[in-house]
Amino acid sequence: MNFSSSLIEQAVEQFSRLPGVGKKTALRFVLHLLKQNKADVTQFGSTFLRLHDELKYCKNCHNISDTEVCGICSAGNRDRTTLCVVEDIRDVMAIENTSQYKGLYHVLGGIISPMDGIGPTDLTIESLVKKISEGEVNEVIMALSTTMEGDTTNFYIYKRLKQYSIRITTIARGIAIGDELEYADEITLGRSIVNRMPYENSLTIK
Amino acid sequence: MNFSSSLIEQAVEQFSRLPGVGKKTALRFVLHLLKQNKADVTQFGSTFLRLHDELKYCKNCHNISDTEVCGICSAGNRDRTTLCVVEDIRDVMAIENTSQYKGLYHVLGGIISPMDGIGPTDLTIESLVKKISEGEVNEVIMALSTTMEGDTTNFYIYKRLKQYSIRITTIARGIAIGDELEYADEITLGRSIVNRMPYENSLTIK
Repeated sequence: MNFSSSLIEQAVEQFSRLPGVGKKTALRFVLHLLKQNKADVTQFGSTFLRLHDELKYCKNCHNISDTEVCGICSAGNRDRTTLCVVEDIRDVMAIENTSQYKGLYHVLGGIISPMDGIGPTDLTIESLVKKISEGEVNEVIMALSTTMEGDTTNFYIYKRLKQYSIRITTIARGIAIGDELEYADEITLGRSIVNRMPYENSLTIK
Repeated sequence: MNFSSSLIEQAVEQFSRLPGVGKKTALRFVLHLLKQNKADVTQFGSTFLRLHDELKYCKNCHNISDTEVCGICSAGNRDRTTLCVVEDIRDVMAIENTSQYKGLYHVLGGIISPMDGIGPTDLTIESLVKKISEGEVNEVIMALSTTMEGDTTNFYIYKRLKQYSIRITTIARGIAIGDELEYADEITLGRSIVNRMPYENSLTIK
């Protein structure tokens, strides 16, 4: 594309690095910003300048936080013996939205993905192992995606933690509530039969 | 959504103002930026800080430009008697990509849209009328979208310009090359029959 201005070209270049944004969408974003008043665009830019400098991570669960220890970790009413291992803040938000979980979290900051150059040392796994070794935690719930990378990460963490006398569980996989069996994929349906559960348990879900 | 950090919330808020970006996509963008190194994020922010301050518009055609007069207006080999009226820089880029147009452009900076509070005085229509009144231009080609707003803008400009002895044309509307008749919408197909053209003209298109 031939932009008549190098500044526009740079702005388009910046936007098109975002996931799922191509050059055309990026140009649409830039033209949208140009129609805003100067204060709005300045605020847009300065928010991102502050992002790296001012952002803090909870020193306990490694979730993004404004304070040294995040709201969940410092709350008095959470079960401190249960730890849910998730990939990033989005998963914490999703689980918190269900209001079904009262334990604490451990945010890995990603999953093991050799293709993207992410190994176990790039994640907060050491901190997780240290936390478990201190003995306060009884159960670790693995809540990662069921992708190749998620399974690898699950298995790696399982191997690191199995020496400690804790329960290691994963969130239940099965047919989503409201889904029809005929449209479910075979692997999910197959697993849901193998891992069938007492009928009484299903009554508490709703 | 409950973000554990007000800075993340602000960044999500900024992104979700962009057209077509919701809160979930915005959060995905922010998390992507957080995984970049600091220099990249700083550059991301500072590009947008510069956007309003440093961006210039060509004083002739009002297109975005790094120089006072843009590359197209200052080129020696363009036909200065033909003016193509377009909405914004994207249309200039699209027409330039065809390599079929050798005249100059006039960029309106938008189209008349009472719903969005955009009236004729918010666009560069006065500058267009002044340019025409100077007598150098023989033909004005209207190349706006065929929406309600585009048609209104076309008609408004037509009324302002018809007192001058110039040709006012619009780009051809019809069945796109390669399209099948049975899938064309009725209005386009109907117009393409009413506005049929000599067969010889179609030979020069390819």
